[in-house]
Amino acid sequence: MTATIENFKTYVKRMKQLEEAISVLIWDLRTGAPKKGVEQRSEVIGMLSGDVFKMSVSQEMGEYLAELTQPDVLETLDDVTRASVLERKKEYDRSNKIPPQQYQDYVILTSKAEYAWQEAKANNDFESFRPHLEQIVGTLGEFIEIWGYGENKYDTLLDQFEPGMTVAKIDAIFKPLRERTVALVKAIGEREQVRRDFLKQNFPKQSQREFCDFILSQLGYDFEAGRLDESAHPFAVSLNIGDVRVTTRFRADDMQSSLFGTIHECGHAMYEQNISTNLLGTFLATGASMGIHESQSRFWENMVGRSREFWNRYYADLTARFPEQFAGVSVEEFYDAVNLVEPSLIRVDADELTYNLHIMIRYEIEKDLINGVITVADLPRIWNEKMEEYLGIVPENNGTGVLQDIHWAGGAFGYFPSYTLGNIYAAQFEAALRREIPDYQARVAAGDLTEIKSWLTDKVYRHGKSLEPAEIVQAATGEEINAEYLINYLESKFRKIYNI
Amino acid sequence: MTATIENFKTYVKRMKQLEEAISVLIWDLRTGAPKKGVEQRSEVIGMLSGDVFKMSVSQEMGEYLAELTQPDVLETLDDVTRASVLERKKEYDRSNKIPPQQYQDYVILTSKAEYAWQEAKANNDFESFRPHLEQIVGTLGEFIEIWGYGENKYDTLLDQFEPGMTVAKIDAIFKPLRERTVALVKAIGEREQVRRDFLKQNFPKQSQREFCDFILSQLGYDFEAGRLDESAHPFAVSLNIGDVRVTTRFRADDMQSSLFGTIHECGHAMYEQNISTNLLGTFLATGASMGIHESQSRFWENMVGRSREFWNRYYADLTARFPEQFAGVSVEEFYDAVNLVEPSLIRVDADELTYNLHIMIRYEIEKDLINGVITVADLPRIWNEKMEEYLGIVPENNGTGVLQDIHWAGGAFGYFPSYTLGNIYAAQFEAALRREIPDYQARVAAGDLTEIKSWLTDKVYRHGKSLEPAEIVQAATGEEINAEYLINYLESKFRKIYNI
Repeated sequence: MTATIENFKTYVKRMKQLEEAISVLIWDLRTGAPKKGVEQRSEVIGMLSGDVFKMSVSQEMGEYLAELTQPDVLETLDDVTRASVLERKKEYDRSNKIPPQQYQDYVILTSKAEYAWQEAKANNDFESFRPHLEQIVGTLGEFIEIWGYGENKYDTLLDQFEPGMTVAKIDAIFKPLRERTVALVKAIGEREQVRRDFLKQNFPKQSQREFCDFILSQLGYDFEAGRLDESAHPFAVSLNIGDVRVTTRFRADDMQSSLFGTIHECGHAMYEQNISTNLLGTFLATGASMGIHESQSRFWENMVGRSREFWNRYYADLTARFPEQFAGVSVEEFYDAVNLVEPSLIRVDADELTYNLHIMIRYEIEKDLINGVITVADLPRIWNEKMEEYLGIVPENNGTGVLQDIHWAGGAFGYFPSYTLGNIYAAQFEAALRREIPDYQARVAAGDLTEIKSWLTDKVYRHGKSLEPAEIVQAATGEEINAEYLINYLESKFRKIYNI
Repeated sequence: MTATIENFKTYVKRMKQLEEAISVLIWDLRTGAPKKGVEQRSEVIGMLSGDVFKMSVSQEMGEYLAELTQPDVLETLDDVTRASVLERKKEYDRSNKIPPQQYQDYVILTSKAEYAWQEAKANNDFESFRPHLEQIVGTLGEFIEIWGYGENKYDTLLDQFEPGMTVAKIDAIFKPLRERTVALVKAIGEREQVRRDFLKQNFPKQSQREFCDFILSQLGYDFEAGRLDESAHPFAVSLNIGDVRVTTRFRADDMQSSLFGTIHECGHAMYEQNISTNLLGTFLATGASMGIHESQSRFWENMVGRSREFWNRYYADLTARFPEQFAGVSVEEFYDAVNLVEPSLIRVDADELTYNLHIMIRYEIEKDLINGVITVADLPRIWNEKMEEYLGIVPENNGTGVLQDIHWAGGAFGYFPSYTLGNIYAAQFEAALRREIPDYQARVAAGDLTEIKSWLTDKVYRHGKSLEPAEIVQAATGEEINAEYLINYLESKFRKIYNI
């Protein structure tokens, strides 16, 4: 039995090492790999991903799992090994049904689609991307048939990112949030808009970069275990616990985009950087779910990074770097500006309040695509119709519309709802933090973020995927997922800013 | 038989794909991977390299080769497949003797040593690097015992980089070159030195970067199949034929270092970018040997990039970018300055003439280390003694002395002689080019480098490793390797500059 345990661990460690290689290859593709190498590179990624997939469903893995999941064996394992065995068992049962060649083709397909998406987005050319997306949706449909599904086909995809989540539950959670958000956005639209002209000026890229580096350090991002790069769409990626990278993009006329994009990805990255090293070499060394992951990016971006206390502390650093741009702008004005609410086209640039409406559009489109209610060819039209309906605005081209996000090119259907689930979790964690660290706000105002990161490390980060999302939320906040904290937080914050 | 051929090709293609992944991981480590991830990353590189190694010596490979190298089978294969089979057979015979675990340990060792070298160099701390180097030299000694050797143990290492080359041959080739170089350096030392003060000024890194990008494009480097990055030591790496990258380093007070370092690596890269796609998926899709590879970096760096004709064409572009720095400096003065001969500490910054003396120091140290004549602990002392003897100068610290090059950290013993062999080949190719393209110099002066790249592509690049170095040199120049062309070239060029 000891030999089986050791062999299982070695086998899983090898899978994790292959995943590290794959992640580096993908990071590289997204941060500037040259065009003519993409075809071959995609094949390499496909080959290695196929290897990992084959290992996850191999006879060898099946034999390890059959032996180690026997109840009398399972109870003798240490906690980490037991959780690792159960995690692999779930994956094995789910993946075992997909033929390896079909999975490898799918990985190659998404690698090429991501590249096609970059070009399509740059050229506002949905048609060049459409066949890629059709193939992806088609393949996902085949996968769902193979996996099986319950009440709704889309539930099967949701479950991959947020275990236990369903269309029925999300519809129930999202409804009051949507209604009260729409009402609040409407009320805000009737008030005088805050100033934001000073945010649209020339902000030299190098200075933006330096300020992002500074803020990352202040938040507690460990540069000895990560780096900041540029990519078309910001992301964070954990290559290993000691190498968790973030990317952002710099716009010469807008410092908000890079700054809050960076803080957002920093939240993801700090989660991964602070996972317990006990989980090294297992598939538990990652976030508990996409929703929990997003709770951390949104917590740091909005609840810390867009708080009044944070800018009371850091506004002087910002104005020192951009003295001309912020001449005569008070910290109150700056705070209001970075919290300005206004319906807009691009999700990643959307304000904190309307953001959830962007998510709902994507959620509804995905749900309908997967259930065959709409087709890929309908997307540009439907996208624009929903933008009109929820936000009252329509993009001029597909580059700033339906093509704006990388997610679908990567096949990540079922992922988008995680963003709003993350906002809900984040507000719930924040309420708990306020209870447990009474001087929480004073600490933010002093730039002392250490205790906050420590609390989150203790309650969330260190556990990685060794606990279920619901267990983490229950243990950290004393209750189940509850959207009221987010609704109250949003109403309290934005009524104050807009004097409602 | 058809099935065996196809299976062999698929098997080799998979090895090449794994090598692409490994190369990306190494490129990433060298261009800015964070410190805390290095340990795990090294293990991933070791694991994948072990896989490739195991495949190269596997029973499966052995069976393919046994079948395909039968004379009656071999003659039925197409040229590329036959060359690929023979290339793998040679590697199989050589590698089969090293136990896989020992090879994997060695790869991990060199990955860690490269990182330790970066730190040691930065801190001028030879002692922190010494144990790594001792282990490398020890392991190479074990490998040589396993492989066997003829007249000299070092021959076995030389043969890996320049097939057929031996200590006896190199000693014979290097002797007249060394004697006439030392004499010429001495004669130059007695002449009035040319101006170079204007090369040591403030050259903003961003402008250097832009000029390097411009020159790369002019030379014919394909940016859709490559990119330029920064690293501690410049290098070129082919990830695949469509993705051949170069790196350089920028010094704020010296534009020569980045410019000619970039042109040097561009020569390597253009070779790899222009290999025939017929060789894709085989181990023939690389340079014929390290010496032939170096001939291309040195040809473009020195014979083109440091020629009077080249600067007649491009000096105006340079001064347009750095108008203040080159105010009042004529193109003659600039040409003389970038060809200034003066004994100096750093090989990669050495002038064209003394460069070969730097190589001879390394060659002699390697030869003596491998034959047990000296030990690693002796290196700082011996390095400094040889610097004194050949160049008349001694480094103040090991960072600018024995620690300056990455090669030994990577285990690349036997590689250094390739640089001077490359210079010899390059001069021989240049003489042939002058014969076959009579207006060669006029073309360089017009910035029309297309024909030159085409000639080299035809004679050298496209063949990759499908021809032996000697075959390439014979076919391109009509004779065997001949150092007289280099000696004559150097004497002609530098006597003119120094009025000797």
